[in-house]
Amino acid sequence: MELSGKDTFTFIGVIGGSEVSPEIARLAEEVGREIARRDAVLVCGGMGGVMEAACRGASDAGGLTIGILPGDSRRTANPYVKIPIVTGIGYARNVAVVKTSQAVIAIDGSYGTLTEIAYALQSGIPVIGLGTWSISISGRTDYNIIIAKNPAEAVDKAMKLLENQR
Amino acid sequence: MELSGKDTFTFIGVIGGSEVSPEIARLAEEVGREIARRDAVLVCGGMGGVMEAACRGASDAGGLTIGILPGDSRRTANPYVKIPIVTGIGYARNVAVVKTSQAVIAIDGSYGTLTEIAYALQSGIPVIGLGTWSISISGRTDYNIIIAKNPAEAVDKAMKLLENQR
Amino acid sequence: MELSGKDTFTFIGVIGGSEVSPEIARLAEEVGREIARRDAVLVCGGMGGVMEAACRGASDAGGLTIGILPGDSRRTANPYVKIPIVTGIGYARNVAVVKTSQAVIAIDGSYGTLTEIAYALQSGIPVIGLGTWSISISGRTDYNIIIAKNPAEAVDKAMKLLENQR
Amino acid sequence: MELSGKDTFTFIGVIGGSEVSPEIARLAEEVGREIARRDAVLVCGGMGGVMEAACRGASDAGGLTIGILPGDSRRTANPYVKIPIVTGIGYARNVAVVKTSQAVIAIDGSYGTLTEIAYALQSGIPVIGLGTWSISISGRTDYNIIIAKNPAEAVDKAMKLLENQR
Repeated sequence: MELSGKDTFTFIGVIGGSEVSPEIARLAEEVGREIARRDAVLVCGGMGGVMEAACRGASDAGGLTIGILPGDSRRTANPYVKIPIVTGIGYARNVAVVKTSQAVIAIDGSYGTLTEIAYALQSGIPVIGLGTWSISISGRTDYNIIIAKNPAEAVDKAMKLLENQR
Repeated sequence: MELSGKDTFTFIGVIGGSEVSPEIARLAEEVGREIARRDAVLVCGGMGGVMEAACRGASDAGGLTIGILPGDSRRTANPYVKIPIVTGIGYARNVAVVKTSQAVIAIDGSYGTLTEIAYALQSGIPVIGLGTWSISISGRTDYNIIIAKNPAEAVDKAMKLLENQR
Repeated sequence: MELSGKDTFTFIGVIGGSEVSPEIARLAEEVGREIARRDAVLVCGGMGGVMEAACRGASDAGGLTIGILPGDSRRTANPYVKIPIVTGIGYARNVAVVKTSQAVIAIDGSYGTLTEIAYALQSGIPVIGLGTWSISISGRTDYNIIIAKNPAEAVDKAMKLLENQR
Repeated sequence: MELSGKDTFTFIGVIGGSEVSPEIARLAEEVGREIARRDAVLVCGGMGGVMEAACRGASDAGGLTIGILPGDSRRTANPYVKIPIVTGIGYARNVAVVKTSQAVIAIDGSYGTLTEIAYALQSGIPVIGLGTWSISISGRTDYNIIIAKNPAEAVDKAMKLLENQR
């Protein structure tokens, strides 16, 4: 990725837990790779698990990765984060991960991921889900989490939604 | 409620949307009243809807109410907030609403409420639900949101969980 | 302090470092006591040093004390905090300490205190200084930090500024 | 600036008010240019004034610019921000501007700038000053704000301090 000539980037968030199975890590890595292939910038929480796997995939494909960290030190970032944002605000940083992204892809899911899904839906930022939470209220499922069957489809859906917004 | 003689307070959070139906408002008001009757302090986001109704109920019953506000001015608090906490950090304040509470009662629910439910579950703070979100992952319902059938039962369950923690 | 009959409280912040000399602690304790005597609520960062001494003074005089904590647990509050607000946002909570106060009294001073003085000046919240920072730019002293000679004068000045605002 | 081959970036913060004189704007622009010439990434609050001028300078010289925004929309960034970080946490984001930087250059100065200087000093992040605040306590000047006479010297000093840290 070449920076100088580029006017604007597209920012895609990847959200998911910091501890994951090898299977989920493979999904996340593939999502990261697809984001970089489409020349978009990957945004995440900068830690391990889904975040690290996605950053590794994006980094392997030559992409740019942003990690918005909860703690006080850039050393807490996973090794594939190129741009560590050191917030020092703990898990309140989940809001910033979401708002910095133009669409988010939720993979698997801890409760932290659920806070991010909910912040995204509140802010009108599209959420694409890969094996993540589903939510319902009074027995009615909320279909605003867009289901994808695999990493390529997830990134495709995210990119298409952004095109339509322009 | 008399302050001087009291060593420690119990803090119960009430979370819910800022726009609600009259029916939900009545539930929230009753929850607030029950919290005050049990001599606990009501914690909420300080705005309208569920928050205002719950504060009105607690205030009517002589209770203390804390509103942890997203904005920059105490004037944005609903009129029943006795202790306005002015954070200026927007909806990142949802974390603080949850962490300041020893248990939270979720009523109905906007997406903001869902962020608070998820932050509470992440932090190990009990969540009691009154007609609120239910969540599932990979087809398995997460039963950590404890269902209550009415306001009195919701506050009873919250208080009992806290007793058991001591 | 009796809550039920009271419509609105006055909130005075006390800001200062978490490690202090016995002499500074005595000043802070006296400031806390004076705040409680005037029936105002003491707001602080909830930790040790100036904050703890001020809370002890207010508490001894039967006053209400709010500690807006940086960390994730109410157990980190000093023992004289009656209302612990658990933010989990680290030192970004300094903004909330300031904005929750209608005037702040700065005692001695760490760099954290200086962030709070600056946030208060930015927000138009009066700052009264007791042996604290003085600031200048391009050789011109900024006189917006109001100097007080002793605890009683500091609290007097804070209370008078608030009366004039009404 | 080419990203793919680069393992780690150096991050230099530029802090200063959102309204400035043309003279200060020229200083800030030159600081931005010098940062980019040294292949470092410019970090700032993303808004107007000093921030916009510094981003323009860095951008003209082919550098990468990060704007850590207080608000809820990337559209509030100045046009020279390549990486907008949308925090939604208001001026609590000043902490993140500072912690994301390995050294900060303070130019001129509003009260917001003073919060950032103080956060940097608290966190042990070097502060280089160009016509900015000076601070003293009990009549003793605090010399931890390192004075620079011009933009090139400011950036030189920042870069040398970082080399020595390695």
